[in-house]
Amino acid sequence: MQSKWIWYRGDYEIYHGLLLHSRRREFDVNIPPFWCQPTVYPTVSFTKTFEAKTEGYVKIIACGDGFVRFDGDKKYPMGKDIFFSEGTHRIDVTVNNPNGLPCIYAVSDTVYTDRSWMVSDNTSTAINAGDNPAYTDPASTPENFPFSYRRIMPVSIKSSGDGMLYDFGFETFAELMIENAVENVAMTVYFGESAEEATDMKDTYLYEHIEGMMSYRLSARAFRYVYIPDKTAASLKVCAYYEYIPLEDIGSFECEDKLINDVWKTCAYTFHLCSREFFLDGIKRDRWVWSGDAYQSYMINDYLFHNNEITRRTITLLLGKPPYKQHINSINDYSMYLICGVYDYYFSSGDADFVKFVMPRVKELYDFAISRLDERGYVVQRPGDWIFIDWADIDKAGASAGEQMLLYKASRAMSRLYAVCGKNGSEYEAYAENLRERIDRDFWRADRGAYVDSADSGLEKVGRHTNVLALMTGTADEEKKKLIIENVLKNEDIPHITTPYFGFYELDALCECGELDYATEQIRSYWGGMLKLGATSIWEQYLPHEKGTEHYAMYGMKYGRSLCHAWGAGPVYLLGRYYLGVKATSAGAETFEVRPHTGGLDKIMGTVPLNGGYVYVEYENGRLKVYTDKTGGTLILGNKKLALKKDENLIVEPVNP
Amino acid sequence: MQSKWIWYRGDYEIYHGLLLHSRRREFDVNIPPFWCQPTVYPTVSFTKTFEAKTEGYVKIIACGDGFVRFDGDKKYPMGKDIFFSEGTHRIDVTVNNPNGLPCIYAVSDTVYTDRSWMVSDNTSTAINAGDNPAYTDPASTPENFPFSYRRIMPVSIKSSGDGMLYDFGFETFAELMIENAVENVAMTVYFGESAEEATDMKDTYLYEHIEGMMSYRLSARAFRYVYIPDKTAASLKVCAYYEYIPLEDIGSFECEDKLINDVWKTCAYTFHLCSREFFLDGIKRDRWVWSGDAYQSYMINDYLFHNNEITRRTITLLLGKPPYKQHINSINDYSMYLICGVYDYYFSSGDADFVKFVMPRVKELYDFAISRLDERGYVVQRPGDWIFIDWADIDKAGASAGEQMLLYKASRAMSRLYAVCGKNGSEYEAYAENLRERIDRDFWRADRGAYVDSADSGLEKVGRHTNVLALMTGTADEEKKKLIIENVLKNEDIPHITTPYFGFYELDALCECGELDYATEQIRSYWGGMLKLGATSIWEQYLPHEKGTEHYAMYGMKYGRSLCHAWGAGPVYLLGRYYLGVKATSAGAETFEVRPHTGGLDKIMGTVPLNGGYVYVEYENGRLKVYTDKTGGTLILGNKKLALKKDENLIVEPVNP
Repeated sequence: MQSKWIWYRGDYEIYHGLLLHSRRREFDVNIPPFWCQPTVYPTVSFTKTFEAKTEGYVKIIACGDGFVRFDGDKKYPMGKDIFFSEGTHRIDVTVNNPNGLPCIYAVSDTVYTDRSWMVSDNTSTAINAGDNPAYTDPASTPENFPFSYRRIMPVSIKSSGDGMLYDFGFETFAELMIENAVENVAMTVYFGESAEEATDMKDTYLYEHIEGMMSYRLSARAFRYVYIPDKTAASLKVCAYYEYIPLEDIGSFECEDKLINDVWKTCAYTFHLCSREFFLDGIKRDRWVWSGDAYQSYMINDYLFHNNEITRRTITLLLGKPPYKQHINSINDYSMYLICGVYDYYFSSGDADFVKFVMPRVKELYDFAISRLDERGYVVQRPGDWIFIDWADIDKAGASAGEQMLLYKASRAMSRLYAVCGKNGSEYEAYAENLRERIDRDFWRADRGAYVDSADSGLEKVGRHTNVLALMTGTADEEKKKLIIENVLKNEDIPHITTPYFGFYELDALCECGELDYATEQIRSYWGGMLKLGATSIWEQYLPHEKGTEHYAMYGMKYGRSLCHAWGAGPVYLLGRYYLGVKATSAGAETFEVRPHTGGLDKIMGTVPLNGGYVYVEYENGRLKVYTDKTGGTLILGNKKLALKKDENLIVEPVNP
Repeated sequence: MQSKWIWYRGDYEIYHGLLLHSRRREFDVNIPPFWCQPTVYPTVSFTKTFEAKTEGYVKIIACGDGFVRFDGDKKYPMGKDIFFSEGTHRIDVTVNNPNGLPCIYAVSDTVYTDRSWMVSDNTSTAINAGDNPAYTDPASTPENFPFSYRRIMPVSIKSSGDGMLYDFGFETFAELMIENAVENVAMTVYFGESAEEATDMKDTYLYEHIEGMMSYRLSARAFRYVYIPDKTAASLKVCAYYEYIPLEDIGSFECEDKLINDVWKTCAYTFHLCSREFFLDGIKRDRWVWSGDAYQSYMINDYLFHNNEITRRTITLLLGKPPYKQHINSINDYSMYLICGVYDYYFSSGDADFVKFVMPRVKELYDFAISRLDERGYVVQRPGDWIFIDWADIDKAGASAGEQMLLYKASRAMSRLYAVCGKNGSEYEAYAENLRERIDRDFWRADRGAYVDSADSGLEKVGRHTNVLALMTGTADEEKKKLIIENVLKNEDIPHITTPYFGFYELDALCECGELDYATEQIRSYWGGMLKLGATSIWEQYLPHEKGTEHYAMYGMKYGRSLCHAWGAGPVYLLGRYYLGVKATSAGAETFEVRPHTGGLDKIMGTVPLNGGYVYVEYENGRLKVYTDKTGGTLILGNKKLALKKDENLIVEPVNP
């Protein structure tokens, strides 16, 4: 047994969300989020009854201050040994922390703080405390996020202009260390995801003025290049400390095409960089937690780390606390992705305990969304709402189809989440079905075999986003799916999606329908295209027709584009899910199927994590080998189903997946 | 024009409430409150459109960090001069402060931060910002409460035991300053409201260990005596810095009886000590803001300082923020006092702006209370509720009459508050009237001419508290009032109230019914009794039969009793309201009456503040003089009504008030 720091469950995420969201910088400006952020309970009370087989001592330490009440009697201060006799004892701790995260840790040979303790926000409702295996050391409190650090060195140092340009060889997120500086010489350190950005001092996105010391360890930032334009720079010693959380790559992929292999590796590295306290959108900009971006990260995570903790942390932060006065990140669609994400997390992890913890908040968020429907029962833009869907020319007049489809999927998720909690959620299922019928009635155009973006504008615009959502949310039945693939997705007259964000959903939908050759081509041309331009991480956006530093511009800023963006890591998911063909078929991957598909490649091999286990798939020259350390797997080859045995290779040949 | 620091209105109070409530100590233990405390919005956005007659500069400074957007365009950092041309400009500021109070201050010759700026919690609803005349200096931020300090010296220093005992002559709340200490000598400093407490080291309530420095300025505490038991103490230089907010005594009272005059002065001083960031219960213990205690402080304040700001601050903190998951301070009655207090504050100040600000919160609190009624529509104890009323033997089984009476008064207050906001609140009035009828039906006992505490227990107990509440809340009609006075208040068979808390309501009710002779006797014996024992401030409780240090004990602690408690200051209110006879008769004291009554004294004179003005009343030897600097006054003598003229003396003689 080992004590862990404990806190009000969920407040750890909220606290680190506040800190994270206070760190975004753009030039010399700090940019806080524009939405309402939740806060931790400043005063919380913990309680535990324990059995002591012998007499002993316990001492409670805390972030904050407060007192310990032992056996309902005397009050003791924090940090003082409390003697107890053999027998049953009750310990109550109230801790108050007006400027941080209230949390406690028990030092004792007998009684340990962990999630078995109950905690209350000082109202009558108590829940199990929050804990984390990272916090077993009384000296390392949960107010600090447990990052790891590894020293990295520039791979190239050369003089440039009036100073020195340091190239670390690849995109990183690190604390820059500068030694041997001349005291009292003022310098500016410029950071660049590209060499152009680092040396283009007028428009460099991240920089810092330093002065007065002989050595500096700067706060962590995204960069590959560092430029120090000072005549004393040549004598500086510069290195950096890569800041990360150690997440193990369980997923892997290789094929005969080095470009695709490099895409996979670069996607995996990109995803590492963006997987920190939470799933971030990017590491240079915004370094915020966006529910839409995070939803894709949950999917990719399942095919790379399958780390349930980071998904839970991200969902917990995004949910925040009732009352809900606005949508998540202020965006209607993002509330829906979050509710769907809770169910997807459950399906991926089988973690009913987490669902039961968040369910009261999920229900309030859903009720908030429902409270803002129009008289037809449709999502429309209310004051403070942002109907986003994507940065694209979507007809959002009145009720837009995409929002209703997401509400449909979220309503079905509600029904299933109720079932996970052992409650009857059939009313949500019925509501969803009725909504689906109304969507079909109002937005489906039989003559065009597609959904229109809006039924209110009269424009009758058919676009990719709405129809991708129809596939992704399950709003379209099998017959409509086929029509959409033909009439929209494969219709070159309908403008292409230009963001990797929705491009990912489109590719996913196409792969789901078996169109892997198209995906292979996209991976080569779109992702491979970035690599050919020297990318060491996947960009927020890539438009092949752009030239030179045009690739770095966005949102009206010369280097505004993020060159390391989580949503670019989609191929990790696609290659694992559709090529290696592994997917869970029941909650927690108790059962799963393996349905390999080469997608036009000659040879594929790799691993997919499966909630604590994994599957290895290898295909070459008509020989397929599948290995798993989990029970419950089925290999599917055409109409043939073969049971996979735990810890055994299954070899099939000749085969042509 | 002058810039002031601005913040999200109401968050200043919540922030200082968090700090205040983190400072209670009991022996070596920190005691945070046991209720759920509200928190500030960590990220808020301010906006202002202004007209510049010439070009100029503005610079925004902040507690926290964030950015300024000027004319909807470029983002600027905090602390940087922004140039603007002649014309209309719009300034938007987002500030984030994860560990403090987000607030800003504009440095400019043209544009000033003040409550005319709009502020939002980053949802769509904006309100006017909060400001305060105390914060005009950019170097003095609202994260610090603007206390004043005045040096005070011990009036007596004598050796005692192994050290020195310092007597400051009267109760104070101050930072103790110790100079000329021997470095690295560890000492313990004991504080006492009495000399016995300071020197009884085993049970002293407040003490501090100090070591390692030659001078110390300790954090502010309540004491009259300080004891330093160390052989080096004789060479110490000891003084203290009285910490206070400068509140002007507008009220005054004198009569021929020095004891009563001393009671008034001691009450006024007691009330000063307890009037700080908010109205506190006491200064040694609890130093918390209790809605029940505060309600009496609102009343006393009106007769001493008539300071609207401190009442607003206290109400704002107590209300906190929705959602309400428990009653104020967890006590059902305290929620009702708070709602009534909002209306009483309006009646006293005429401050409709404040009512409009708090009204959404007040309504949610009222709705919370209503949501917890039983099937009969009665207040009962729900999980987490504390049905308090008073520390007394009250029959609280099932629905207790007192709680229903307070709900009646709060419901009437709701109706009136709606009217203040220009809305129709008649449904609350109708609800209240129906409730009153039900209370009469279920709790009034015609045969005994009194209300019973509970109709559910079968005990049919008639007690003072319930019947005092029937008078105080207006539940009892005129006929029942008379019966209650005779059958309960003047009935010596019914046990007396022993706390000054409810004793104040009883005295108020008796004075309201003209029983001033009884009040005069009480002031002499009860309050005068404390003074005769050497009190320099009014105690939490005084039981004449107790002896020696028994007077200092409470809650199981030898010195647990507070010797400086706000609720003891009631005579300031009683002497002003019923003897000088001044009370407002319409909101904001637009009209008021003066109805002097000597209460058996020969000579009375004094002043009562009236929301920015005052009334002076003097009676001696059959000659009455009344002076006021306000319009709207009426002197009432028996059946005679005389109009008071602003800035003129009205002299009536012979008269026998």
